[in-house]
Amino acid sequence: MSIIPALKWRYATKKMNGEKVAQHYVENILEAARLAPTSSGLQPFEILVITNNTLKEKLKPFAYNQSQITDCSHLIVFAAWSTYNIDKINYYFDLYEKERDLPKGFSDGYKNSVIKQLTSLTPERQFEHAARQVYIALGLALTEAGALEVDSIAMEGFINAEVDKLLNLEQKGLRSVVLLPIGYRDAENDWQSELKKVRKPFDYMISYID
Amino acid sequence: MSIIPALKWRYATKKMNGEKVAQHYVENILEAARLAPTSSGLQPFEILVITNNTLKEKLKPFAYNQSQITDCSHLIVFAAWSTYNIDKINYYFDLYEKERDLPKGFSDGYKNSVIKQLTSLTPERQFEHAARQVYIALGLALTEAGALEVDSIAMEGFINAEVDKLLNLEQKGLRSVVLLPIGYRDAENDWQSELKKVRKPFDYMISYID
Repeated sequence: MSIIPALKWRYATKKMNGEKVAQHYVENILEAARLAPTSSGLQPFEILVITNNTLKEKLKPFAYNQSQITDCSHLIVFAAWSTYNIDKINYYFDLYEKERDLPKGFSDGYKNSVIKQLTSLTPERQFEHAARQVYIALGLALTEAGALEVDSIAMEGFINAEVDKLLNLEQKGLRSVVLLPIGYRDAENDWQSELKKVRKPFDYMISYID
Repeated sequence: MSIIPALKWRYATKKMNGEKVAQHYVENILEAARLAPTSSGLQPFEILVITNNTLKEKLKPFAYNQSQITDCSHLIVFAAWSTYNIDKINYYFDLYEKERDLPKGFSDGYKNSVIKQLTSLTPERQFEHAARQVYIALGLALTEAGALEVDSIAMEGFINAEVDKLLNLEQKGLRSVVLLPIGYRDAENDWQSELKKVRKPFDYMISYID
C-alpha cells in the first residue's frame, strides 16, 4: 500500500459543486484525523464539522467569501487548545491508563513531566505547539479524502478571531487554526483541476548525508 | 483505498533493531513528504536524511540519548525556513510558471501578495508558519512508512540549537523542527509494540453542527 496515488490525485479545489459526501466517507476522513499521532499523545485539538447552511453563510465573509465555504459538502474546522489545560491533560492520561489496563496513577511521573514542560511555555507558545499537531491531523484528513476521491482544500486564510467568536471557541478553550472544506470539484469552473501538480524537485529539497 | 489501516498499524517505536530500510521504501516515504500540500504551495522546508553513523552518534546526546537516533535505518530531519526569504519564494513561482507553461511573470500579482503577507509577520511568526507546514509533511511521511510497514517515531524532544549547529542549518536559512527516525522495531525489547493504541473517543473530539 502507498498513499502516493492519493496525494497525486488530490489538489487544492477552488470550486466545489455542492454535492454531498456520503456519511461513511466523512467518517473515514475524520477517523484519519482522530488517529493522527500527536506530541505525547495529547491530541490537543477538537474538530467541528459544519453542514448547517446558515452557519456556513455566516462564516463565509470571515473567509474572504471563498466559495468553497458554502459549496462544500462538509466544512471541517480544526481548533487547537488555546493553552495546555491540566484537566484536559488529566483526561488523556486517565484514558491511557484505562485503555491499557494500567493501575491508576501508573503514568503520573510521565504526566507530570509533560505538564511541567508544556505549561512552562508562554500561552502563545502553548497554542503554537498545539497548532502544529493540528497540521498532522489536517494532512491525514486531506490524504484520506484523496484516497476516497473526495476533494478538499486546506484554508489558512480567514479571520480567526471572528470564526472563534461565531463558533464559541473561546469558552471551550479553543482557537481556530485551519479550515478543510470537503466535497466534489466543479471541474468545468475550476481551471486548476486539470493542471500539473507543482512540487520542487526531490534533489532540491531533500539531501542525503551518508 | 484508505490510509486508516496504515495509521492503525503504526505506533511510536521506542526501540529499533538497526535493520536497513530498502532504498525504494525510503524514497517513497520522502516522496510522500515532498508531495505534501503546503500554504501557497511554498514547501517552506528542507529534509535531511542521515545514515552516517558518526553523525548519528554526534546527534544522539542532543536528543537526550534516545536509542532510535542510532538504531534507526535513516534519520529524517525536517528543517523549516527560518524566515520567508524572497529568493526562495521567487524560486517557487518561477518553477510554478515553468511547470505549467505560463508566461514569466504570470503569477506576479499573487506572488507579491504572498510575499507582502508573509514578510509582514515577525521573523519568529514566519518560522512558526513554516514549521506548521512541516507537520503536514511529517504526518504524510510517517503514514507512508506505516503503509509500507516501516516503523517510525516523530521526535520533538531534542535541543534544536545544537542540532542546527551540527548540521549547519543556520547558514542555509533553516531551523530544525522535528526528527523522524525510520527503521524496524525491536519487538522483544519494545514493550509498547503490542499495546493498544490510545485515542480519544470520536464523540469527545469531533462535533457535528447540522
